[in-house]
Amino acid sequence: MQPHTFHIPGPFPLEGGGYLPELRLTYSTAGHPDPDRSNVVWVCHALTGSWDFASWWPGMFGPGEVFDPARYYIICVNIPGSCYGSTDALSVNPETGEPYYHDFPLITNRDIVEAFERLRVHLGIRHIEVAIGGSLGGQHVIEWAVSHPDLISHIIPIATNARHSPWGIACNEAQRMAISADPTWQERHPAAGLTGMRAARAMAMLTYRTYETYAVTQTDDHPDLHTAYRAATYQQYQGEKLARRFHAFAYWSLSRAMDSHDVGRGRGGIAAALAQVRARALVIGIQSDILFPVQEQQEIARLIPGAQYEEIHSLYGHDGFLVEIPVLTHLIRAFRGEPVVTGQPETYT
Amino acid sequence: MQPHTFHIPGPFPLEGGGYLPELRLTYSTAGHPDPDRSNVVWVCHALTGSWDFASWWPGMFGPGEVFDPARYYIICVNIPGSCYGSTDALSVNPETGEPYYHDFPLITNRDIVEAFERLRVHLGIRHIEVAIGGSLGGQHVIEWAVSHPDLISHIIPIATNARHSPWGIACNEAQRMAISADPTWQERHPAAGLTGMRAARAMAMLTYRTYETYAVTQTDDHPDLHTAYRAATYQQYQGEKLARRFHAFAYWSLSRAMDSHDVGRGRGGIAAALAQVRARALVIGIQSDILFPVQEQQEIARLIPGAQYEEIHSLYGHDGFLVEIPVLTHLIRAFRGEPVVTGQPETYT
Repeated sequence: MQPHTFHIPGPFPLEGGGYLPELRLTYSTAGHPDPDRSNVVWVCHALTGSWDFASWWPGMFGPGEVFDPARYYIICVNIPGSCYGSTDALSVNPETGEPYYHDFPLITNRDIVEAFERLRVHLGIRHIEVAIGGSLGGQHVIEWAVSHPDLISHIIPIATNARHSPWGIACNEAQRMAISADPTWQERHPAAGLTGMRAARAMAMLTYRTYETYAVTQTDDHPDLHTAYRAATYQQYQGEKLARRFHAFAYWSLSRAMDSHDVGRGRGGIAAALAQVRARALVIGIQSDILFPVQEQQEIARLIPGAQYEEIHSLYGHDGFLVEIPVLTHLIRAFRGEPVVTGQPETYT
Repeated sequence: MQPHTFHIPGPFPLEGGGYLPELRLTYSTAGHPDPDRSNVVWVCHALTGSWDFASWWPGMFGPGEVFDPARYYIICVNIPGSCYGSTDALSVNPETGEPYYHDFPLITNRDIVEAFERLRVHLGIRHIEVAIGGSLGGQHVIEWAVSHPDLISHIIPIATNARHSPWGIACNEAQRMAISADPTWQERHPAAGLTGMRAARAMAMLTYRTYETYAVTQTDDHPDLHTAYRAATYQQYQGEKLARRFHAFAYWSLSRAMDSHDVGRGRGGIAAALAQVRARALVIGIQSDILFPVQEQQEIARLIPGAQYEEIHSLYGHDGFLVEIPVLTHLIRAFRGEPVVTGQPETYT
């Protein structure tokens, strides 16, 4: 999958004040638009995801899958502030000739959706058939359906919320504290704060999974005092793995975007905002999710007119939205009115 | 409350190998021993607690309280490795004339209980009427009841486990990663790693509380983009508060002690070990505890012969063991065969 680039001409104003002098979006597509561009599926990625949706959401896209490029024109944009090609803190600020680093401004979820909007218009798309995403990506789906009620026909927000919770903000803040504890974070170079980010990632893994996930996958068989515990080395491994593909500036930017999420801000609150949604909504919660617990998805479904709510079980907690593809595709096919084999979602893998 | 000091004479061997050349224990007492020393209540403190049990467990000890010094001889020892007066990493190693710092050895929960044993013998105590503790302290209570089955008549382990879970180890490891991300942690001075410890504490607070705790106590009323979120400043505050009274060496030592906890190690497993317990056990779980979930306490109660299991509700998750004093004292009075006012535990506050 090869990404494309779109340069938004001129300064891009930001909700928090100020602007980005220029904004580059990197995005991927699969399939082809219908003549009337009525077959668009817009995929919104999560915190450490990218435009490469087929790699982080395998089994959802492809021949015979629920979103088959033979039928759909599928688009995914790297979130501005992330490190997969869109403008981020390592980009050169044209006004200074230097990378932004810590001067990179706050980009909110509303700014991110506005950036998506610019690309949508550029691509000549007047209608989105399905917008889908989990976690941070689900926040973008909901924000978009609220801010542009006539644009999207179907939304599928998964393991997400309408306003980021105090709990979620506290998780993100503890992770930013870990990044800040690494004094290289003060330095103006791409690897700044990477050791802190490893700890942040290890912390985040706990909120993406559950007690049971660790019990099943990280229990030592014959523990003694002189062997490193498997659960501890797993945390180190997860931190290291992210440090090889991400940077602390992106981690910081996107966690702050997540904190900014509140579809009710300036719109009379969440209930008033969600009441404006005209898209048909399939809202999916994961029963074991401790980061975005199901009451958040239940609230969304209660407040969006006519929304359908489904709850799935997973050993993997919040990460279930990336893992439980058979049941997700089963639910999506049913929502789309396609044939499903009841009780045997695994036939769709 | 004034602490006392006990010097364990001679080297103190450690389970992990090696020894401490000397071991000082700082402990407090309240009340007086009966002539036959049959009224001993031994209190085991948790990760950041101290010998000063009346301050961190208010409402449990005092005139008219469930453990009244007029009736009981109450003892609490600062855990070796902690920073409230017992030998820790800042103590001078008599073999080098310098503080240990990072050379301070691994002290396991079994070492800690063995240290308690030395003090017990020194105090001429042959029988402990009640041993009580929550979290890390509860681990010590259980280890003691397993290793010395004839010593303790009643144990009250709260919000604890028989073997520390992969989940718990992963939480501790993420926190140690945060300390390690602070390069001052490499330095040989008392404030080493304090910034990292702030992040570790912020992370830990999430596991001590719940989604609901933060929702109820840390929700912003009228959030806008330009006000610091209350949940974020709360995390900073909690990190700062601990940094004023604790050091990263103690945090590291005690989290490693917690990871070492496994009453079944070398004893044929947890079931065989707990089957040896002769103490009458009141095992208390907190339904909202995400760090030591109730299945851990249920397991303890199932495996200790004749144990009584009680489960309490709390908004505060794991921290409920420090907060829910009325219901805890109610359960303890009932367990002790004392008059209780059913359904009105709050009359005991």
